[in-house]
Amino acid sequence: EALTNILDQPLIINAALSLAGFILAMVVLPRFYPLFIKAGLFGKDMSKRVPPGKEPVKVPEALGVIAGAIFLCIMFLFIPIPFWRSWVVDGKEEFPHHEFVEFVAALLSICCMIFLGFADDVLDLRWRHKLLLPTMATLPLLMVYLVNFGSTTIIVPKPLQPLLGPALNLGLLYFVYMGMLAVFCTNAINILAGINGIEAGQSFIIGLSIMAFNFYELTRKYPESHQFSLYFLMPYTAVCAAILYYNWYPSKLFVGDTFCYFSGMTFAVVGILGHFSKTMLLFFIPQVFNFIFSVPQLFHFVPCPRHRLPRYNSKTDKLSMSYTKFKMKDLNILGKTFFKLYWILGLIDVRQGVGEDREYVECSNFTILNLMLRIFGPLHEQTLTIILMVIQIIGSCVAFFIRYKLAGVFYDVVE
Amino acid sequence: EALTNILDQPLIINAALSLAGFILAMVVLPRFYPLFIKAGLFGKDMSKRVPPGKEPVKVPEALGVIAGAIFLCIMFLFIPIPFWRSWVVDGKEEFPHHEFVEFVAALLSICCMIFLGFADDVLDLRWRHKLLLPTMATLPLLMVYLVNFGSTTIIVPKPLQPLLGPALNLGLLYFVYMGMLAVFCTNAINILAGINGIEAGQSFIIGLSIMAFNFYELTRKYPESHQFSLYFLMPYTAVCAAILYYNWYPSKLFVGDTFCYFSGMTFAVVGILGHFSKTMLLFFIPQVFNFIFSVPQLFHFVPCPRHRLPRYNSKTDKLSMSYTKFKMKDLNILGKTFFKLYWILGLIDVRQGVGEDREYVECSNFTILNLMLRIFGPLHEQTLTIILMVIQIIGSCVAFFIRYKLAGVFYDVVE
Ligand SMILES: [Mg+2]
Ligand SMILES: [Mg+2]
Repeated sequence: EALTNILDQPLIINAALSLAGFILAMVVLPRFYPLFIKAGLFGKDMSKRVPPGKEPVKVPEALGVIAGAIFLCIMFLFIPIPFWRSWVVDGKEEFPHHEFVEFVAALLSICCMIFLGFADDVLDLRWRHKLLLPTMATLPLLMVYLVNFGSTTIIVPKPLQPLLGPALNLGLLYFVYMGMLAVFCTNAINILAGINGIEAGQSFIIGLSIMAFNFYELTRKYPESHQFSLYFLMPYTAVCAAILYYNWYPSKLFVGDTFCYFSGMTFAVVGILGHFSKTMLLFFIPQVFNFIFSVPQLFHFVPCPRHRLPRYNSKTDKLSMSYTKFKMKDLNILGKTFFKLYWILGLIDVRQGVGEDREYVECSNFTILNLMLRIFGPLHEQTLTIILMVIQIIGSCVAFFIRYKLAGVFYDVVE
Repeated sequence: EALTNILDQPLIINAALSLAGFILAMVVLPRFYPLFIKAGLFGKDMSKRVPPGKEPVKVPEALGVIAGAIFLCIMFLFIPIPFWRSWVVDGKEEFPHHEFVEFVAALLSICCMIFLGFADDVLDLRWRHKLLLPTMATLPLLMVYLVNFGSTTIIVPKPLQPLLGPALNLGLLYFVYMGMLAVFCTNAINILAGINGIEAGQSFIIGLSIMAFNFYELTRKYPESHQFSLYFLMPYTAVCAAILYYNWYPSKLFVGDTFCYFSGMTFAVVGILGHFSKTMLLFFIPQVFNFIFSVPQLFHFVPCPRHRLPRYNSKTDKLSMSYTKFKMKDLNILGKTFFKLYWILGLIDVRQGVGEDREYVECSNFTILNLMLRIFGPLHEQTLTIILMVIQIIGSCVAFFIRYKLAGVFYDVVE
């Protein structure tokens, strides 16, 4: 009796497993440091004071793989819970295979991404590999979506309805959109990186924000897909919290590409299978801004140095802007346009007439981190992380405002 | 029309994709060597002549991970094929979710294992990790089995029927058996290793043998589960062939734990979901023999050196037996019993009165490789591999004989 009552509360069991996963991650993560360092998986923290005559400390890298493995274990243990009643009580014929396959396909996509991320950390894969496998990994997910949900028709936002009509069947384009969602989430987190605690911090806040959205929606019209999302996000946020604890300034571990891949795919999966991919993207406002801001460097319209992270000044123990250096006449038309636009908008710091012959121009790199340093001046590393976390939280507030107050402007369906 | 006809032949499409996978693996495997060596994933081939004053060549290790990734890509592309008709023609209601989920769960288990194997190659995991994650990884598979097939009742072999009755419900024990199957297949291949071409060679022959069994069964009573098995085994055997090509004497690559984990899990998956796990184990006769033979050393009843592979003699370019050395009085009762039994049976070579005070005993290590060297004398590495391949083929012939001629002694059901 009591057991039956507990088993009927999958959210509570999931929360308990998540807590167990958090504790497990807190305990085992430090134990793995020597294994990772022995395997050559370590980085050197460039923004820390090094005592004279000493080497910078080796910080173990790619620990996200342990968080991912713990997440998978929690999910494997959890899978039977939401289905036990269908199986034991309702009998075999009634078994909701279509819901079960969503679970398994979601885990397959996430597992593939953790695997790929770890391979990337170890092998330093090329770009073509990084695009091939994630695209492949989303195929089972998209097929499940196609089979279970079927429709690729979207409701056209009101301002566009005169042009396109009330509904539009995107067909194959819809799958391209969903496939790109996974690639975007993954890389958006990966490029807003480089200082202690920032990858794990932003993922943690995004995870909590989507969870808040899901919990609120549980009380409204379509609770099922939000419950599904919570099954994944609670364990994710739990292991993410443990990673954040050790990754916070001063970092005991680096999260690695593995963690960004794992996070991005988890968000994409719940957004796609929970049918709230647009709302989910709203929680990526700072990442979207950072991505768009970075475009001229990512696509090499403006020279992009190997690392764009802020420069460390060991005398003041503070971070300041990092710069890229080029000759104005070497930029193509797109490069010049972006450069001038950003300059006028005050997004970048520009120094003219540098170098021999004063032919060179220097400007701060196109990242949100450098922009913050331009606005606030040189900052301590932890302060910069906290500022970014505050921006992420403000972004989530804006997201909720858009979702619940502004959406009526674009769509009818919001109650 | 033509397209419809082709799409209705999933086995032919699978074969075509497998061929493409083989070609892809042949092309890309060598291109990954520098990446692996740069990442520190390499071994030194101890059974090759090294020119004086030179270092042994670095052979890239863990290339099985590339084979596994190609296998996954093939399977992701193939998934929709067997289901396209149900979806497009028969309509959404009829969609065979229970078959689809078998596919996805099988891939999830295999993907987890490739991931774990690669982590093992990179990090050198401890035993408890090696047992935890595979057990977890089989959970979704077992749940699919439970939901789709349901019964955990087995038919009792005729000689045991007076004791146990005609049928026996194993319940939870059945899942323990299936979980152990995955762990066994994985480790059985992993311990019959150490010379060029042997891991890939045995897996290739096992793969071909199960395929032959499946093709034969396609013409008989229950073709569906054997067709399912072929969907997995054809791409597996294809990438395995490419690995074997480069792993054959003299090896250009080492397969790594990844490959053994990947192979073992693939075999376990098709055995479990194809409902022929007992027949599948029959194709592991040499591995089962090698495992039982190794037990006294694996469980440390008799001292087990770090490596048990045959010793290389660079003068003759041949391999000879490797030995373990101990004092007779240090063995416990089990150790002494096994040692004497193997000695009487002529399975090991024993040298008494070695070392200072002549207190030590030396005996050849308990592996099938050393046994072959005891029978045939020192052999060239390639010759030893070929002998093992012949044994594997003979084992498969015996397996077919037992399955089709002898099974009537134990079971009624064989037609
Ligand atoms: Mg990388
Ligand atoms: Mg290992």
